[in-house]
Amino acid sequence: MSRNKFNKSRQNGATEDLRDLGFGSRVSEESSERLLNRDGSFNVERTGLSFFQSLNLYHSLLTMSWNRFYLSLLLGYTVVNAIFATAFVLCGPDALTNFQELGITERWLNAFFFSVQTFTTVGYGAISPSNISANVVAALDAFVGLVGFALATGLLFARFSRPTAKIMYSTHGLKAPYRDINGFMFRIANQRKSQLIEVEVTLLFTRLITKDGDRRREYYQLNLERNRVSFFPLHWTIVHPIDEESPLYNIGEEEFRASNSEFLILISATDDTFAQTVHSRSSYRHNEVVWNARFADPFQMKEDGTIGVDLKVMHEWEGV
Amino acid sequence: MSRNKFNKSRQNGATEDLRDLGFGSRVSEESSERLLNRDGSFNVERTGLSFFQSLNLYHSLLTMSWNRFYLSLLLGYTVVNAIFATAFVLCGPDALTNFQELGITERWLNAFFFSVQTFTTVGYGAISPSNISANVVAALDAFVGLVGFALATGLLFARFSRPTAKIMYSTHGLKAPYRDINGFMFRIANQRKSQLIEVEVTLLFTRLITKDGDRRREYYQLNLERNRVSFFPLHWTIVHPIDEESPLYNIGEEEFRASNSEFLILISATDDTFAQTVHSRSSYRHNEVVWNARFADPFQMKEDGTIGVDLKVMHEWEGV
Amino acid sequence: MSRNKFNKSRQNGATEDLRDLGFGSRVSEESSERLLNRDGSFNVERTGLSFFQSLNLYHSLLTMSWNRFYLSLLLGYTVVNAIFATAFVLCGPDALTNFQELGITERWLNAFFFSVQTFTTVGYGAISPSNISANVVAALDAFVGLVGFALATGLLFARFSRPTAKIMYSTHGLKAPYRDINGFMFRIANQRKSQLIEVEVTLLFTRLITKDGDRRREYYQLNLERNRVSFFPLHWTIVHPIDEESPLYNIGEEEFRASNSEFLILISATDDTFAQTVHSRSSYRHNEVVWNARFADPFQMKEDGTIGVDLKVMHEWEGV
Amino acid sequence: MSRNKFNKSRQNGATEDLRDLGFGSRVSEESSERLLNRDGSFNVERTGLSFFQSLNLYHSLLTMSWNRFYLSLLLGYTVVNAIFATAFVLCGPDALTNFQELGITERWLNAFFFSVQTFTTVGYGAISPSNISANVVAALDAFVGLVGFALATGLLFARFSRPTAKIMYSTHGLKAPYRDINGFMFRIANQRKSQLIEVEVTLLFTRLITKDGDRRREYYQLNLERNRVSFFPLHWTIVHPIDEESPLYNIGEEEFRASNSEFLILISATDDTFAQTVHSRSSYRHNEVVWNARFADPFQMKEDGTIGVDLKVMHEWEGV
Repeated sequence: MSRNKFNKSRQNGATEDLRDLGFGSRVSEESSERLLNRDGSFNVERTGLSFFQSLNLYHSLLTMSWNRFYLSLLLGYTVVNAIFATAFVLCGPDALTNFQELGITERWLNAFFFSVQTFTTVGYGAISPSNISANVVAALDAFVGLVGFALATGLLFARFSRPTAKIMYSTHGLKAPYRDINGFMFRIANQRKSQLIEVEVTLLFTRLITKDGDRRREYYQLNLERNRVSFFPLHWTIVHPIDEESPLYNIGEEEFRASNSEFLILISATDDTFAQTVHSRSSYRHNEVVWNARFADPFQMKEDGTIGVDLKVMHEWEGV
Repeated sequence: MSRNKFNKSRQNGATEDLRDLGFGSRVSEESSERLLNRDGSFNVERTGLSFFQSLNLYHSLLTMSWNRFYLSLLLGYTVVNAIFATAFVLCGPDALTNFQELGITERWLNAFFFSVQTFTTVGYGAISPSNISANVVAALDAFVGLVGFALATGLLFARFSRPTAKIMYSTHGLKAPYRDINGFMFRIANQRKSQLIEVEVTLLFTRLITKDGDRRREYYQLNLERNRVSFFPLHWTIVHPIDEESPLYNIGEEEFRASNSEFLILISATDDTFAQTVHSRSSYRHNEVVWNARFADPFQMKEDGTIGVDLKVMHEWEGV
Repeated sequence: MSRNKFNKSRQNGATEDLRDLGFGSRVSEESSERLLNRDGSFNVERTGLSFFQSLNLYHSLLTMSWNRFYLSLLLGYTVVNAIFATAFVLCGPDALTNFQELGITERWLNAFFFSVQTFTTVGYGAISPSNISANVVAALDAFVGLVGFALATGLLFARFSRPTAKIMYSTHGLKAPYRDINGFMFRIANQRKSQLIEVEVTLLFTRLITKDGDRRREYYQLNLERNRVSFFPLHWTIVHPIDEESPLYNIGEEEFRASNSEFLILISATDDTFAQTVHSRSSYRHNEVVWNARFADPFQMKEDGTIGVDLKVMHEWEGV
Repeated sequence: MSRNKFNKSRQNGATEDLRDLGFGSRVSEESSERLLNRDGSFNVERTGLSFFQSLNLYHSLLTMSWNRFYLSLLLGYTVVNAIFATAFVLCGPDALTNFQELGITERWLNAFFFSVQTFTTVGYGAISPSNISANVVAALDAFVGLVGFALATGLLFARFSRPTAKIMYSTHGLKAPYRDINGFMFRIANQRKSQLIEVEVTLLFTRLITKDGDRRREYYQLNLERNRVSFFPLHWTIVHPIDEESPLYNIGEEEFRASNSEFLILISATDDTFAQTVHSRSSYRHNEVVWNARFADPFQMKEDGTIGVDLKVMHEWEGV
């Protein structure tokens, strides 16, 4: 039973708070895969939901890319009008203006364009419904069109107003010289024009160890040079000093890579444009960490006395 | 007077904070019904509000099911157009194109479809208003239509953006073995695709007792194995260990069932998609608690090394 | 200079935090009017803003009553169409279909209804623009119409989504018997269907006193029997016990009424439907406080064992 | 490397928290320009983002002025219809009603107005599409129109609902007499009708100093007479008393002006209308600070006993 796992890990000396991350014991302790993907999503899978529960159309429409979103709208627009076109054809030969003179293909085509004119409420009037059933179908068509575009408007605004931080992480984390010792470092920058303020970073380190023949995942929260900045106008190099207290203190590169090491990053901030709290997550797996390197300097002194930062340089590093 | 009740309960030794749940003394102490329904609503009734105050159309339109919502829209659409159809007929025999040639039924029907075309702003033009009063009615019709669909758009978005956690609770709470002792356990899972983070649980226990011939409701906040997880990607089994400090420590099954026992659950979390705080409430009444059982294991090891959870197994338990 | 006032009040012994309410020294100390109106607005006035700054159309459209809001929309709709009607007439005798045959009044009327048909995008087509200038005006008309209704939709949703608690306050505050002493009491109830949770109350007492020939306003935060409830399904009687620590302890009714006494109430809560923090303010001035009375009991035992509350009884009290 | 800068500044005695403002070391220590502009934006520049990343159309449309916003909409409306007009012309001589009789310029003009009628869904019907390709283009035109206005609606509402405090700062900060000593003072007022509550102010002071031949920026958080007010109905004069603890205590006017002194102001508050947290930032550079002056009194006693404040007087000061 899963509870036993929790109990066991509770009895050893690992930090209690960190076991409460919510991954569950089996995922934490048996999986050799990464816990968090680079894009911040969780590397787990849920099954057992009904088709409709797992469909979750709204969530998909909200989080898909803009291109896919517009294509979905256009597809829905075409399909719905094709259905209504068929309904108009089924309403008989006197359904629409001039229907009687046309063959079945041309009728459907005319009905399709008529449906488009009704659905979008353009209604040129060159074609118009002639019998009662066609009038009823047209009334429904216009109703569906208006509700559909009301839905699209709601979705568009929901997509706009989603509080999402677009934080750029350096492609690699580095083990770099830091003062007299070493440090684990990575860089972040705000990809958006809107300001982020009160940015807070939590950095966790996790690896699988084998102790007394028992494979177990350990979690550590790492100390940071600073874990909070009030403003975030430029970039920020986040540093964990590898001092005596650090769980990385005595770990060599080979041991580091062999033990499924992973850095988990949790960032929360306030978006200044909308005064919303935003979250960002990412992780560096052992193969995304470079041993003994330092980041390039992204600052550029301008002629007018101000200082800029070149975000292209953010990912660059050199060996030491 | 109701204040006396509060005073009385204040004088006995029960935890002060818990009496401040807001149910009021009479409800707390005299009602033998459950306090909280399974869906999280309160089992109380308010009267004395005027019809319009209690109608609260907006709140109803916001919280009804999607099917009922769309049917309400469609009904409103039909009724409003029927009213405008009647208005057009009342505008006289020269109100609309070709009106004079038609009987009263056909006039109304034509007017209805014309109103639909105006309300939805389709406006084919095969029918159009011919006199001034019909033109005025048509101007109103289009105005009402546009404002109506603006309202519908607002409502649709309000429905979308309501921060609602859809938390699935196991059908039963269990008194199950936990380490060397017993525990009260239940399970929750996130039914949505969107992530919940920083999930916090408060578990209260309440029962009616008779002391010194006085019937009284007691509230206790129960200690939990953990009351907070940072992430919630899978399911979570919430455990109250029944140790010496637990108010359930010495209560047998019969006494438990006889004293109107009820577990109240309050969950708050942050929805990762919208960065909104969401709340969920539920309760287990004594007849929804199984004595001496344990939950089935929902974890499944995948071939690729990841671990999944089958939510269908969430409600399953076996006797011990 | 106003700073001196602050300094002076700082030097006397009044509670520091309470002087920071933000009313400013002159308002606090010289005004004999109430500080807070019953509806929670402040009894002060700002001048010196330019016409547009003080107009604040958006704020007005957001906070006016629904009836006034719909009337404003209808008025705007009529005025804009009248303006466009005039523009169409100015486009010459060949601007619209059949224009040439009509006199100036009928032209304007036809142009008005044509503008309505364009503004609302109905566009029957019985009338349509014939020359280039009329086509340009029609294009603008339709653009203004669509942007106007987009604005109306935005406003409607902004009105919907405003987090407003509709808290009903008892018409009077009472000085009533409370346990062995007296208390200042008033009642609140939630007028909405949506649940309020985590309701917190702050009660302040203020009066003008004359000390050493100097007139001064004093503020006190009053202790409450309880200042927070987790749920608020029914009503809540808020009680300040008038014990030795209370600033009301030795104040008789006459002194109370003579010294411009006022109770300021600040309530914050979380609206369960939208998970939004809502605020409510009100005040009881000395003439709205009844000396020696108690509230009627609003609880009603139902036959099915549940307990209801009759909100009509909320305002009722009887002398003691 | 930039890290060294941080290290160096860490070794001197300046307050640690204040160095974490997020400006980065190079900006902090080498730039002689102001850090924060009067409007609260940061005086730094980011480069290296791709064209689309730096375009950030949504953010621009959200934060531009209303006039520019409406002009952008109108421009987009014209351009899109011009494109569709060209598409209709390319659909051949039988694309639209009466097309064949017209020259190429008149065709394009007719097609433009027809596109407007389709895009806005007016659809008079005097012109309508005659062949299949024109019908398809018209279907796209109407689709783009509806999605476009859905986007405009979303944008309009997003502009409405942005939580923005419009806080008016006095044009100058003053070094003014305060009690027996001096103080640095400035004034703020709420320019909006909506109430701000729970207003909190943080005041930072920064200047460049040269120590041991090393140029360095120092940050100090300044103590305030009060840093928080519960309500903000009028104006508020914020005072930093220049006592022994103040970093301004022994600084003369010349030294003040020579060392790139700058006051950074951070304000957070809750907007009562929307219950949203709002932020405002501003700064006073040395040349915006007046030495030895005091603010004029903006309070006006009304005849009815209430007190008003004249915001025009807010910026006024007189020498002492």
